[in-house]
Amino acid sequence: MMKNIAIVVKPHAEEVADITIQICDYLKSEGKNVLLEERTASVLGYSDFTTHNEIKDNADLLIVLGGDGTLISSNRIISGANIPILGVNLGRLGFLTETKVEEALDTVKKVLSGNYKFDNRMKLISDIFYDEEKVFTTEVLNDIVINKGALARIIDIEVHIDNQYVNTYRADGLIISTPTGSTAYTLAAGGPIVYPTLNSIILTPICPHSLTHRPIVIHDDSEIKIRILNDDEKVFITYDGQIGRKMSLKEEIFIYKSPQPVKLIVSQKRNYFALLKEKLGWGST
Amino acid sequence: MMKNIAIVVKPHAEEVADITIQICDYLKSEGKNVLLEERTASVLGYSDFTTHNEIKDNADLLIVLGGDGTLISSNRIISGANIPILGVNLGRLGFLTETKVEEALDTVKKVLSGNYKFDNRMKLISDIFYDEEKVFTTEVLNDIVINKGALARIIDIEVHIDNQYVNTYRADGLIISTPTGSTAYTLAAGGPIVYPTLNSIILTPICPHSLTHRPIVIHDDSEIKIRILNDDEKVFITYDGQIGRKMSLKEEIFIYKSPQPVKLIVSQKRNYFALLKEKLGWGST
Amino acid sequence: MMKNIAIVVKPHAEEVADITIQICDYLKSEGKNVLLEERTASVLGYSDFTTHNEIKDNADLLIVLGGDGTLISSNRIISGANIPILGVNLGRLGFLTETKVEEALDTVKKVLSGNYKFDNRMKLISDIFYDEEKVFTTEVLNDIVINKGALARIIDIEVHIDNQYVNTYRADGLIISTPTGSTAYTLAAGGPIVYPTLNSIILTPICPHSLTHRPIVIHDDSEIKIRILNDDEKVFITYDGQIGRKMSLKEEIFIYKSPQPVKLIVSQKRNYFALLKEKLGWGST
Amino acid sequence: MMKNIAIVVKPHAEEVADITIQICDYLKSEGKNVLLEERTASVLGYSDFTTHNEIKDNADLLIVLGGDGTLISSNRIISGANIPILGVNLGRLGFLTETKVEEALDTVKKVLSGNYKFDNRMKLISDIFYDEEKVFTTEVLNDIVINKGALARIIDIEVHIDNQYVNTYRADGLIISTPTGSTAYTLAAGGPIVYPTLNSIILTPICPHSLTHRPIVIHDDSEIKIRILNDDEKVFITYDGQIGRKMSLKEEIFIYKSPQPVKLIVSQKRNYFALLKEKLGWGST
Repeated sequence: MMKNIAIVVKPHAEEVADITIQICDYLKSEGKNVLLEERTASVLGYSDFTTHNEIKDNADLLIVLGGDGTLISSNRIISGANIPILGVNLGRLGFLTETKVEEALDTVKKVLSGNYKFDNRMKLISDIFYDEEKVFTTEVLNDIVINKGALARIIDIEVHIDNQYVNTYRADGLIISTPTGSTAYTLAAGGPIVYPTLNSIILTPICPHSLTHRPIVIHDDSEIKIRILNDDEKVFITYDGQIGRKMSLKEEIFIYKSPQPVKLIVSQKRNYFALLKEKLGWGST
Repeated sequence: MMKNIAIVVKPHAEEVADITIQICDYLKSEGKNVLLEERTASVLGYSDFTTHNEIKDNADLLIVLGGDGTLISSNRIISGANIPILGVNLGRLGFLTETKVEEALDTVKKVLSGNYKFDNRMKLISDIFYDEEKVFTTEVLNDIVINKGALARIIDIEVHIDNQYVNTYRADGLIISTPTGSTAYTLAAGGPIVYPTLNSIILTPICPHSLTHRPIVIHDDSEIKIRILNDDEKVFITYDGQIGRKMSLKEEIFIYKSPQPVKLIVSQKRNYFALLKEKLGWGST
Repeated sequence: MMKNIAIVVKPHAEEVADITIQICDYLKSEGKNVLLEERTASVLGYSDFTTHNEIKDNADLLIVLGGDGTLISSNRIISGANIPILGVNLGRLGFLTETKVEEALDTVKKVLSGNYKFDNRMKLISDIFYDEEKVFTTEVLNDIVINKGALARIIDIEVHIDNQYVNTYRADGLIISTPTGSTAYTLAAGGPIVYPTLNSIILTPICPHSLTHRPIVIHDDSEIKIRILNDDEKVFITYDGQIGRKMSLKEEIFIYKSPQPVKLIVSQKRNYFALLKEKLGWGST
Repeated sequence: MMKNIAIVVKPHAEEVADITIQICDYLKSEGKNVLLEERTASVLGYSDFTTHNEIKDNADLLIVLGGDGTLISSNRIISGANIPILGVNLGRLGFLTETKVEEALDTVKKVLSGNYKFDNRMKLISDIFYDEEKVFTTEVLNDIVINKGALARIIDIEVHIDNQYVNTYRADGLIISTPTGSTAYTLAAGGPIVYPTLNSIILTPICPHSLTHRPIVIHDDSEIKIRILNDDEKVFITYDGQIGRKMSLKEEIFIYKSPQPVKLIVSQKRNYFALLKEKLGWGST
């Protein structure tokens, strides 16, 4: 049974303080413990808050009010834990936040009564090694983007999959995406739309220098190893469009599926194709 | 143990009669029964042959000498049966026929000694219904292509997946492809490359009339239902580029995964990405 | 001064009989001769009509009520003559028919008072030769499309420009388009949008079999020569999507700019980019 | 008659010192003045050199030994002057440097005897205004690229052409290219190939955020005005991939055709389509 309910609100989203307080009050009236994340407490004008570690250790459910970006960053709080997430969008429909704010309270009630379904959404782990030592690791729900600096020249990105040499991309960059991320930056770079629960990883070059490239969709249990061959260009790596990092020379990137997917609560009457139309205008005349 | 070995040779491929006879002789010397398909027997100058039904019922292995097209048509002979296929290409490397003709005999020996690996390659079944009665059914290894006649106008193709409305494609046509078929016609229509054993189906419109289309990759257990909305245009359906059929008004097409995949014997040192480069020039400068 | 005003209405467009009769009455009240094309007279319920040849020889202005398709076919009536065309769309905005039906009468008045501007829109001539003899010729405003039959295999299309060998396209077909036609079938095949008065021709392959193709935009005074290299496949050629023709073996196609462009009356406040957005959703989110 | 011949060699290209000295000796033996640019003199081991201004004022011909990049940067030396350029490639064939190093001396002889043809290649001028004051101006032969910083979010680029609002691109960036530049970065971003002497400008978005974008080809006499709508993101502008500049808030970019094209000496037996094949693999299987 869900006892401890964590809540994260989009930073500075004062306009949702009211509905969030309603949800809190409802949860308390049902005998639940409400765990407010620090900035969320501040939005609500509360001084008490729960630390990220406490949320990760104790929450039975995470409710996020914001957009897809807020859900992605909130998910990092509970990274590794098996806690379902309910995303409520403030305004514009999201691929991850399907519940509208006016349906929020009703949906919370349904979820608490066990009446919900969820998608397991794959995450990717990216480890960066320097001289055989791991110097950085993080997880993404959408994508890992390697790209050159704005004033740098084209870069050469060598890719191995499962110890097989795949390709050296001469390009502005390369996107390694989950199926969830196929409708994010991958789409802008010309990639296909991949059903979000399909067990796969998508590799899409950004502005490849040759005519012969195509995005490629591979198994989700593939192990990807990436090296940048240029010593003299600035290269950056970005995680879910939120965390950026300048690559150092000789660093190698390993990418593989996280053992812990995101447990994303989805609408009962969910139609992914309708979502594509509404969000992207996919297929409209 | 493999006892009955069927052989199919590309029609009129007299140039491989010699190597085929060598293979036959070797097989017989090992105490195997050789089942020669009718046209193959004729290529070899033999009058005895084995019927397609006998091959399907009795063969333990099917050896095909030809290109990908020959393998695809030969596979229809054993449709539904669980018989591994070894494809030997005559000349140009194939996506399905990875063994070169000069390695053919050695590879046959290895396979007979149990020293081989295989891919399970998904097939799609297409049933056509008219007035709720099934009027046609067939299987494909690459793709099902719906398209308009050369002089017809654009057609409207309504697609449902798992009873959810997906889209009405205004286009010249629509390709429903297995991952194996992603490097065939789907590629020409702008689709992604999908790893051949990824459990997926790819939908790619042909010359869509709007700017908002993208190929979509979905689960392989999806059930696809297709209707043509135009009464007055000629519409054709093509299976693996080999079997064509003019659609009648009011016919509906159902497409779903075949319970029996193709058991394709692949090279031990197989690197799919190297194959992409060699066959398609993928990623070359 | 404009004395003889020809009118063509979309076949069977009974709904515009009223406005057309208003225009006729106005024109007569101004002392103009109204030349009604045969099917147009029939739509209006008149028995008198003017032949196509008489229209071509005598008209000072051609008014077309219909869609882009009607304007394109009407234009063939006056092919070779220097007669401005005013296109009035019945309903959906057209790339060639920018005037709305409710603005029709006002626009006619303006045009008669000399208050109009026009675009010269390039046309392409296609001559077909068999054994050095011209067997067919026609003009297009949008495009010439060469493509394979629905059940045929890929075809090989050899292209020379100004006597230089260009390419042999292995593809479903090839589109040779005017800039006006860049927003028609060319767009569906992945071509660029070309400003309609830019002096250029666009070549866009349909579903090319290799990864290395891109549309190409060339000078409008280029002379294009095309041969089909396949003897055994059915190949068709279509003009503006309206006239189709089965190619015979050994026929050669020559394509070059018509000396006589279409003199298309355009809106005074015309913004081509707004038209792209309204018709195609170009650039919308 | 050509009297003063300027020579520029790729920086640090010691390997061409010999052939360059041969060319110099030949020119001197023919009574020509050789004007060596500073770094070129240093590559040859000479201490005398001619300043950029002297070259611009006096040269009758500019010989460049290097790649396309060297030709582009050398061209800035003579910006605004009507001096033909002969490009000799060191190794890899270039789109601008068609003459091979082993043909260099022969080609120089032919050019001096008046036996050459040239293309007029359009250049674009980019003026940057801040508060109605011009703060920067430069010319390009290939392209002007506006793009976001590697770690920045998507940017909004508002474009007007000839005082008409065109579009607000939500994208990573936007490329404004000459036809010469259509085979450079524009191609990587999905643009069409445009014949290099076609009087046109190509606008191609980089990773546009919506599905509805297409490159657009417009008249070369268009005046383009560009504003960045985001205050908070880093935006860069790059000229021919060689000169970079960080945009300041409120800057506006004006882009229009330079009155002085580049007079590029081209091979007598030039076939642009063969060059496309050799450089890009265009159309190869």
